[in-house]
Amino acid sequence: MDEKLTKILIVGYGNIGKAVHQSVEVCSDMELSGIVTRRPVKVVNEIKEKGYSSDFVFDLDTADDLASLTDVAILCGGSKNDLPVQGPYFAQYFNTVDSFDTHPDILDYFKKMDKVAKDNENLSLISGGWDPGTFSSQRVMANAFLSNNSMPQAFYGLTERGGLSQGHSDAIRQIQGVKDARQYTHAVPEAIEQAKKGKSDLKVGERVWRECFVVLDETSDYDLGRKAITKAIKQMPSYFKNYRTEVNFVSQKELERVHSDMPHDGVVIAATQDGRNIEYACKWPSNPNGTAGILVACARAVHRFYNKGKTGAITMLDVPPALYSTYSKEDLLRDFM
Amino acid sequence: MDEKLTKILIVGYGNIGKAVHQSVEVCSDMELSGIVTRRPVKVVNEIKEKGYSSDFVFDLDTADDLASLTDVAILCGGSKNDLPVQGPYFAQYFNTVDSFDTHPDILDYFKKMDKVAKDNENLSLISGGWDPGTFSSQRVMANAFLSNNSMPQAFYGLTERGGLSQGHSDAIRQIQGVKDARQYTHAVPEAIEQAKKGKSDLKVGERVWRECFVVLDETSDYDLGRKAITKAIKQMPSYFKNYRTEVNFVSQKELERVHSDMPHDGVVIAATQDGRNIEYACKWPSNPNGTAGILVACARAVHRFYNKGKTGAITMLDVPPALYSTYSKEDLLRDFM
Repeated sequence: MDEKLTKILIVGYGNIGKAVHQSVEVCSDMELSGIVTRRPVKVVNEIKEKGYSSDFVFDLDTADDLASLTDVAILCGGSKNDLPVQGPYFAQYFNTVDSFDTHPDILDYFKKMDKVAKDNENLSLISGGWDPGTFSSQRVMANAFLSNNSMPQAFYGLTERGGLSQGHSDAIRQIQGVKDARQYTHAVPEAIEQAKKGKSDLKVGERVWRECFVVLDETSDYDLGRKAITKAIKQMPSYFKNYRTEVNFVSQKELERVHSDMPHDGVVIAATQDGRNIEYACKWPSNPNGTAGILVACARAVHRFYNKGKTGAITMLDVPPALYSTYSKEDLLRDFM
Repeated sequence: MDEKLTKILIVGYGNIGKAVHQSVEVCSDMELSGIVTRRPVKVVNEIKEKGYSSDFVFDLDTADDLASLTDVAILCGGSKNDLPVQGPYFAQYFNTVDSFDTHPDILDYFKKMDKVAKDNENLSLISGGWDPGTFSSQRVMANAFLSNNSMPQAFYGLTERGGLSQGHSDAIRQIQGVKDARQYTHAVPEAIEQAKKGKSDLKVGERVWRECFVVLDETSDYDLGRKAITKAIKQMPSYFKNYRTEVNFVSQKELERVHSDMPHDGVVIAATQDGRNIEYACKWPSNPNGTAGILVACARAVHRFYNKGKTGAITMLDVPPALYSTYSKEDLLRDFM
């Protein structure tokens, strides 16, 4: 275990930010250095209950003052609006970890973050979490271990309940006239069976379908809103356009009663025609908690890599397993091999 | 993809060595530099069928002549007698990859290999394969991602057929009156269910049971043999004593008809009391083929690490996923994240 604690700054205190805070608290090698938020008054009240003073809360524009107090900033904002701005901004001042999850834009985002982080001699791990993140790592490894004979595929929402997608729920909430929303992803069982038999060219829209629960903004015209919003959801590129999508409208009360937790689960399947098969699955009763556990382990890895002189952008594809762990090299060789 | 091919030397040409050869042949970034064996005449005949000349076959003691022809030597000998001698010997001359799998001795073997490899400016990846190997990596990552709240456990033989254990089959063959034998390991379904709910202190005898198929030596008295042999198996320390064990007697013909392949499978389960769950499973119709695919990917990683100046011993815990892959960094960011 490292002798000095890794000081973690949390940027954004929504679901992920709170879960990261919780995860940092249970890690004996880490401590909170602060929380950066656009709602400092609210956050001060929230963390008081946990025994933290207002000294831990900072406005969004105070980043440069915090550099000396922080080893790694975990950016907990959304991929659509927050991270494209906050990523490059905070990478000027800190080592960062984020969970940028707009898959088609990852390469571009990587290049931007790589330049800013290198120019400022910081290290930024982008697109951490489970997908992108651990699932990405598993896709790369499974493909390599099966001698490129399989292109691994991911399936989400294997449980009856399905998997709540934060990114997709967020995207729906951006639509005008939407007050609140939840999106559950469901795996298509027949597609899973095909994948296990080595069929590796299933389109993403054949692998999963999307179930949406939407609360209309009371100020909008209800009937007109339904139609326009359903259309806006179904046509949203990347998020919904190429999927079978069901849109249900519910009351805020109903949404809070039935959909207040945030379960998610998924599996990466890699299989060859000759019957070799590798599967990696995870299941989170709370997706933010599951993601947070991974992001915090990524922060540990970033701090160690940075201490070895590494700068620029990386992903979980660049991180050796041992770097995530609090255990010493000898402990790992003795107890985990 | 690398421009120059990685030249692979195979040391030992049994089940694993042959499977490694097959795996090298399907990797576009690799080529065979030679096969080192204590049975050169036999091996020359075997590889002639595949279109290789006798120039590819070398005696065990010709290692130093081969150094210039080889980037990585994959050591395919057994952990009991071969690797403790061959590992330190070949690490003097080459970068090496091996599948040393005597779990309690891995730390000691690591230290020995680290010293020899460092002294000779080579790089040695030890204990590659699936367990130890990928399963070890998954144990470390799952433990870290679940904030040390779970000690991951492995189960073998989840398929109906079970997993063929070479070590246990060998042990039965040592008993007087036994002509041939196969031992299949089976996971205990109830134990898997408990592990998924967060129980992480299951004894190994609670996690698996053992099924044996035994061919009697024709020269022994059949009826007397059955009883004595069953007893000898069930009481064998380490191998069978603390497990539920079933012994079946079959003819040599039956054994060869039904049990000539070498299937194996297993899963690493990590779960917390609060319901978070990570599972990594693999299934191999042929255990040697599955293992070989991983060893060859390890050789790719070793060659790259070595080219960056790394020397000494490593395990799969030290290898970032990207290093196993033939894909370029841009391809990985675009297609695998």
